[in-house]
Amino acid sequence: MTTQSSSRGLLTEDQESEIRESRAAENRTRRCTVPGLEEILYEPMPILDHGFIRVIDYMGDDAAIVQSARVSYGKGTKHTRGDAGLIDYLMRHRHTTPFEMCEIKFHVKLPIFVARQWIRHRTANVNEYSARYSVLDKEFYIPAPEHLAAQSESNRQGRGDVLHGEDAARVLDLLRDDAARCYEHYEIMLNERQDSGIIDDNRAGLARELARMNLPLNTYTQWYWKCDLHNLLHFVSLRADPHAQYEIRAYADAILETLKRWVPVTTKAFTNHVMEGVHLSGAALGVVRRLVAGEALEQGDSDLSKREWDELMAALGRNI
Amino acid sequence: MTTQSSSRGLLTEDQESEIRESRAAENRTRRCTVPGLEEILYEPMPILDHGFIRVIDYMGDDAAIVQSARVSYGKGTKHTRGDAGLIDYLMRHRHTTPFEMCEIKFHVKLPIFVARQWIRHRTANVNEYSARYSVLDKEFYIPAPEHLAAQSESNRQGRGDVLHGEDAARVLDLLRDDAARCYEHYEIMLNERQDSGIIDDNRAGLARELARMNLPLNTYTQWYWKCDLHNLLHFVSLRADPHAQYEIRAYADAILETLKRWVPVTTKAFTNHVMEGVHLSGAALGVVRRLVAGEALEQGDSDLSKREWDELMAALGRNI
Amino acid sequence: MTTQSSSRGLLTEDQESEIRESRAAENRTRRCTVPGLEEILYEPMPILDHGFIRVIDYMGDDAAIVQSARVSYGKGTKHTRGDAGLIDYLMRHRHTTPFEMCEIKFHVKLPIFVARQWIRHRTANVNEYSARYSVLDKEFYIPAPEHLAAQSESNRQGRGDVLHGEDAARVLDLLRDDAARCYEHYEIMLNERQDSGIIDDNRAGLARELARMNLPLNTYTQWYWKCDLHNLLHFVSLRADPHAQYEIRAYADAILETLKRWVPVTTKAFTNHVMEGVHLSGAALGVVRRLVAGEALEQGDSDLSKREWDELMAALGRNI
Amino acid sequence: MTTQSSSRGLLTEDQESEIRESRAAENRTRRCTVPGLEEILYEPMPILDHGFIRVIDYMGDDAAIVQSARVSYGKGTKHTRGDAGLIDYLMRHRHTTPFEMCEIKFHVKLPIFVARQWIRHRTANVNEYSARYSVLDKEFYIPAPEHLAAQSESNRQGRGDVLHGEDAARVLDLLRDDAARCYEHYEIMLNERQDSGIIDDNRAGLARELARMNLPLNTYTQWYWKCDLHNLLHFVSLRADPHAQYEIRAYADAILETLKRWVPVTTKAFTNHVMEGVHLSGAALGVVRRLVAGEALEQGDSDLSKREWDELMAALGRNI
Repeated sequence: MTTQSSSRGLLTEDQESEIRESRAAENRTRRCTVPGLEEILYEPMPILDHGFIRVIDYMGDDAAIVQSARVSYGKGTKHTRGDAGLIDYLMRHRHTTPFEMCEIKFHVKLPIFVARQWIRHRTANVNEYSARYSVLDKEFYIPAPEHLAAQSESNRQGRGDVLHGEDAARVLDLLRDDAARCYEHYEIMLNERQDSGIIDDNRAGLARELARMNLPLNTYTQWYWKCDLHNLLHFVSLRADPHAQYEIRAYADAILETLKRWVPVTTKAFTNHVMEGVHLSGAALGVVRRLVAGEALEQGDSDLSKREWDELMAALGRNI
Repeated sequence: MTTQSSSRGLLTEDQESEIRESRAAENRTRRCTVPGLEEILYEPMPILDHGFIRVIDYMGDDAAIVQSARVSYGKGTKHTRGDAGLIDYLMRHRHTTPFEMCEIKFHVKLPIFVARQWIRHRTANVNEYSARYSVLDKEFYIPAPEHLAAQSESNRQGRGDVLHGEDAARVLDLLRDDAARCYEHYEIMLNERQDSGIIDDNRAGLARELARMNLPLNTYTQWYWKCDLHNLLHFVSLRADPHAQYEIRAYADAILETLKRWVPVTTKAFTNHVMEGVHLSGAALGVVRRLVAGEALEQGDSDLSKREWDELMAALGRNI
Repeated sequence: MTTQSSSRGLLTEDQESEIRESRAAENRTRRCTVPGLEEILYEPMPILDHGFIRVIDYMGDDAAIVQSARVSYGKGTKHTRGDAGLIDYLMRHRHTTPFEMCEIKFHVKLPIFVARQWIRHRTANVNEYSARYSVLDKEFYIPAPEHLAAQSESNRQGRGDVLHGEDAARVLDLLRDDAARCYEHYEIMLNERQDSGIIDDNRAGLARELARMNLPLNTYTQWYWKCDLHNLLHFVSLRADPHAQYEIRAYADAILETLKRWVPVTTKAFTNHVMEGVHLSGAALGVVRRLVAGEALEQGDSDLSKREWDELMAALGRNI
Repeated sequence: MTTQSSSRGLLTEDQESEIRESRAAENRTRRCTVPGLEEILYEPMPILDHGFIRVIDYMGDDAAIVQSARVSYGKGTKHTRGDAGLIDYLMRHRHTTPFEMCEIKFHVKLPIFVARQWIRHRTANVNEYSARYSVLDKEFYIPAPEHLAAQSESNRQGRGDVLHGEDAARVLDLLRDDAARCYEHYEIMLNERQDSGIIDDNRAGLARELARMNLPLNTYTQWYWKCDLHNLLHFVSLRADPHAQYEIRAYADAILETLKRWVPVTTKAFTNHVMEGVHLSGAALGVVRRLVAGEALEQGDSDLSKREWDELMAALGRNI
């Protein structure tokens, strides 16, 4: 778990060889399998500068959803409605329990501040690398220049224009220097270097559980994370949303790609109904009805606030 | 889903052939597999008179627990402590999250009053056969004579001696007759018989969601039920306990047998620490310390109530 | 929704007097209180023929939601937006966690088949009357004539026209007779009558946990049920929906009335955004955009199925 | 645990005056109240150097647990057993649902590395201060000298002796300096100082959601945290345990003190059964039985590992 040496630079040689070994396995099973997902099993997809996400295991497929919805003895697809129609119906009418019947397990490497957002999704299982027990690696998230966004003026929880020139350079320098210095001091407090071992035989190192508190929030951590499909779709709907912070969105986007391989029919319905869909309030529906009826309507004539009106017009593709 | 005709009498021929088909599948996977569990995959284990439980899918094995605990890139088993030792340690010290990394899915057929106890375990996923949507089968749980227990005199929530002779016969007659009559009337209200279809073309049947309310609580239902290993062990610890009602214990016992096939190392640690273990209160521990020190102690000398004292003495195997 | 005369037979005199006593209490507290909800505290609201729901305790109010949200958003929020605006914003943008900060506890009496639907909402706390431990009361749900609906022809999970005349009378007779007979036999198996005690001193009664299986699904049970506001709104959105079975809808409607007293601002936002709102898929949104732009569009010109098209036209209030 | 002088610098004057105002409220309620808990309502209990925990709201008391349990067990319970006996029984036999019927809400200020441990308890509700939306305060946890422990030699997840002299001084200097420098750079990246506002009118500040990643894990955050009593007891049993990291234990200990005020009967049963209790495996129970029977037993004669044997002997108070 020490030096990064592979061409990918993401993993150590030991890790790469362990992954190669896992991928070489060819087991026989009576369970349903998804060849498109098997293809990428164990393989890390790089995210951000040092992070990744990789699928470790999965259970179920599109047909398993249908099978559960029908509480059937066989595989589904034999009755009046095709599987895709049924899955679309379940998605449209919020019959969420059949989607809970599929499960997936990821191994994720991610900056701690992203991990803190991620963990708010409580209906999932997690095993995180323990910084009480082990020493954290010297890896920090430093944004690529195109993601160095200024604070948004209009949205307190958002980003504005990208920083340039000196402003950008200063930020990157500060982030890099502080991370390096904090880590250097982490090692001094531990009295132990990752590369070269004990620093000074004559003194005791601070407990790991204490020393780690000196590390910044862009330090990378990693965990195993397991989630059912329903809750995973919910995660994606919130975290692949344009309002989510870019850094977690990068992970959510990768999960969405994984979903296309794993449950393509479900992912199609999800994309249509949730990702590309829109929710209208009763008041907004009233406006839409009047517009569809041909009425020329201004915000002042509606029950909508300025902000909700603008959101609605944007959804309807109307120039404002 | 109509007539029961197979030699086993548990399933229709259609169902049996669907299961045979599923079992004949031989897929290739890079995921870990558990041959001992694959052996019984899809195969119903009979429980009570018409019920069953069968494994539909699973994810993970003993090694996956170790892998998650170590947040490792490979399979585990290479470090200082063997897998079994680590699993025993995790179980002993209530490090429960690695056990959540395994998941299993069952198809269960069970009487409704058992289903009502079962569903109290909330951290699981369920799809139940819908009696709003479909007609329930004509199947009821009638206890075997050896399970026709009288109300316990000492424990309001328990069973006493088994009923015999006329007493037993009367109970069985009542249960059988009432179930048959209620079902007959269910069909009349529906204006539809499972065997022969519409009863009277000139009248409308009552909605299924209403007619079902006439059925007794021993009517069989079925569901897909999916649970992670940690929560499943908790289920087993409560429901395979002698204080659990016999009818749900029959299912929990079958699950425990399944666990031995799936995660033998974990099941061994679980059996030792949980099933055969005992929890002592601080006061009970004080008594044990004094007994171990050779003191001759009576209940009156302790801080235990008569009831807790008796429970402790029973656990210690002392004649009372 | 308020007074409840014992002539209605909903409660025993003991229960009524306990409620009177609880309602007479006047305690002082530093916690926030909601006078509108205090008014009906402990008071049973009758539902169906023998059921009720009553509020036992609560925590928080509209202001508590705002207070919790402002821990998240800090001082800035306070000045720019009023409480109602913030709550509306939270509801519109699915910021659900502040709504979890309010909690309410109900005592509910309900038929078992309703309880079985209800319990599927897992993020809640329940203590149900135990039929292993105690004898169930002789009370059954018998629908009022106007709710005796036929099975829907178009929707397998729905109701059609109301039954009349002989058809209705037959159903009511069957339900009443079977319930009475099953209960009579329940008592015989228990060897104990609720009114008059032991039936026959010379024989043992069947264990309660077994005898109860002879009771039909319209038998009443009761429980304490505690839920946070976010999950309660989710419950209401699904169970006060026209697609929900009438019998559980009756409870959900009563909860919605309770919400108006407890958290009026939240309930208003919820009604607008959720109850009266509508969700459009990406494809449906495309149709709406074209309609708003003045295009004359038929289903065949869209990407919607006939069924989804019809649902959309209904939502838009267009004659089909 | 009570008075809090602003000289301590824990709160701003605004916050203190808000708390005074809340505490001055005297509302009337029909709900049950707990005078001992009302006494400290809203009042911050200081934890660590800048943290605190304070009770914001609560629902239920010891009697509410009994009341909920009696819905389950019916009338019979009332007469045979007192409240304390019933609560002890529920605790001893893991009847956990009645304890879920009480709820409490805290406002907690805590270092981020503690927050990361805390949040692993998923069955709770949280609203955390958002560092995407607002600027974090300049407050960091710096351990008191007596908590500057060295890494344990025997337990990779524990602490050894306390550091002294130069070793301690160096650690404290590093922690203080790095925190100060990281925060200084946080402000520069934001182009905004908490005290004096915008730094340079001619440049844009980095988005808050990005700048915060430069802060170390000992930065303080705060949240509202709401939990039911059953899950809170579980939290305390794990986090007030000697194996828990000291910093979270400080919070768990304060919660335990709060519990004594809120639900004294439950806390007494919990302390006896859980905090002072011990769990014996089947193998350990076998050893205890033999010891109680007077056998002179060594580890080699038992089925216990050296480690489990030592743990057992320690529990039994035997010199090893």
